[in-house]
Amino acid sequence: MIDQKIAIVGGTGQFGQHLGERLEENNEIVISGSSVERAKEEAEPHGWGYGEGKEIVKGADIVIISVPIAVTVDVIHEVGPNVSDSALLCDVTSVKQKPVEAMKQYSDEVLGMHPMYAPSNSIKGQKIVMCPEKGKKWSVMEEFWEEHGADLHFTDPKSHDKATSIVQGLMHFSELVMADVIRKSELSTDEMNEYSTPIYQLITDLTARMLNQKAELYGSIQNHNPEIEDVREEVVDSAEELREVIKDDEEFSKKFEELGESFDLEGAQERTDKVIEFLSNDVRDD
Amino acid sequence: MIDQKIAIVGGTGQFGQHLGERLEENNEIVISGSSVERAKEEAEPHGWGYGEGKEIVKGADIVIISVPIAVTVDVIHEVGPNVSDSALLCDVTSVKQKPVEAMKQYSDEVLGMHPMYAPSNSIKGQKIVMCPEKGKKWSVMEEFWEEHGADLHFTDPKSHDKATSIVQGLMHFSELVMADVIRKSELSTDEMNEYSTPIYQLITDLTARMLNQKAELYGSIQNHNPEIEDVREEVVDSAEELREVIKDDEEFSKKFEELGESFDLEGAQERTDKVIEFLSNDVRDD
Repeated sequence: MIDQKIAIVGGTGQFGQHLGERLEENNEIVISGSSVERAKEEAEPHGWGYGEGKEIVKGADIVIISVPIAVTVDVIHEVGPNVSDSALLCDVTSVKQKPVEAMKQYSDEVLGMHPMYAPSNSIKGQKIVMCPEKGKKWSVMEEFWEEHGADLHFTDPKSHDKATSIVQGLMHFSELVMADVIRKSELSTDEMNEYSTPIYQLITDLTARMLNQKAELYGSIQNHNPEIEDVREEVVDSAEELREVIKDDEEFSKKFEELGESFDLEGAQERTDKVIEFLSNDVRDD
Repeated sequence: MIDQKIAIVGGTGQFGQHLGERLEENNEIVISGSSVERAKEEAEPHGWGYGEGKEIVKGADIVIISVPIAVTVDVIHEVGPNVSDSALLCDVTSVKQKPVEAMKQYSDEVLGMHPMYAPSNSIKGQKIVMCPEKGKKWSVMEEFWEEHGADLHFTDPKSHDKATSIVQGLMHFSELVMADVIRKSELSTDEMNEYSTPIYQLITDLTARMLNQKAELYGSIQNHNPEIEDVREEVVDSAEELREVIKDDEEFSKKFEELGESFDLEGAQERTDKVIEFLSNDVRDD
């Protein structure tokens, strides 16, 4: 893409910076942040313009909303009235229904995006979910991602939120529940280590990996993806149901087999064999 | 250990065979199975004796109960009256309180064991939980495991069952709940793959790995470890509690931080970085 005036609302954040640095060649970048001071600080070393969100979007060809999930919809409503009807209005939030609904009120060109990677990584090979909702100008972002070797997946906001309610929502919630039960058991880490298997160690390590990040991100995904509340309810329902099923050997065997039908059992066995082999040869040696 | 007459009740099973093959040098082995025919079939190629459980234990110096969890206590009561008071009576079941209680009725020499590995592996480096309950003769089994390079951990049956209620019980139950919610979501494997992250793939693969085994083992552990019912209840309670906590940003952040205190966050981050690196370089290439 060339000669576009690109306003990155939230351009002082890590993802905003990451985008600005990859878009600045041949385009004019202007960013906003939590304050004009902050924006100036980050913009000047790059030679970018800066200002308040509702100012920088005026006259921009492309507006990218790159702010925390919790404030995304509010920010869209704040800057939206100043976005030109013909400007491409897009966002990079991890949930899609609410931001896209909000953006549709302010432009004829709307694209919801969910880049599924951390801004510290390169774009090559990363999954980007694309929800083009209005107009045709979204293809300039398609070109941008493709130039950088991303793996694009086109869908609608509802399907996105439904799938991520499992891939992110269920996964994080299950890990939190597991962590809470372990904590309540009051068994010491040493005691656990005595009984730990490679798989137990790996699953608790993945849980601890999440707990080593910021609570805000995980709380926001749970609360701002409208599909996840149902998933949390399903966790409670399934746990209650399985508590009963497990008491009856025959019913349990049937259930166990049924559950297996939703997974690639042989592929999983082969892949996890390799991981376990790797764990016993490598990680434990340290 | 030398010149012992060792009766392996359930010696036709995989673990019984594994033990027999490692104990036969310098000792006399005699096994029983679900039928005398079965026992004969497995015993003859090895040159072992065979017979019904309650017959082979007569006059044995060591009796090892190696039958499925679900029938362990019944089998102990069946053969127990024929076990000599001075014989070492031991088992290899994954739960310890009930089998050890039962064995104590029949001998002055009682040892509960939980070898935490599959019989297809070598003993070297494997964790063996040892619960010596009566007498001193259990040291012959200690020597046996040590000769083979096992990693022994001494404890009491209640502590064992409490720890494994988390390491095995919670882990398996959580995986079952996750699998059930994924199945109910009716998202196709293809759809999931579009959104899958390396960590999601790994956790669902570990779940599928369990679902690729026999239901009986997992059902038995859930039902025969008396501590696991509480764990299943805790899963339901924690999930319900977290559903509420998650709605309040401040409360959630507090909870998230608290949960992190129970884990080795930095170690987990380092270990999982390596696993994720391995996954992206190796497993995905196939």
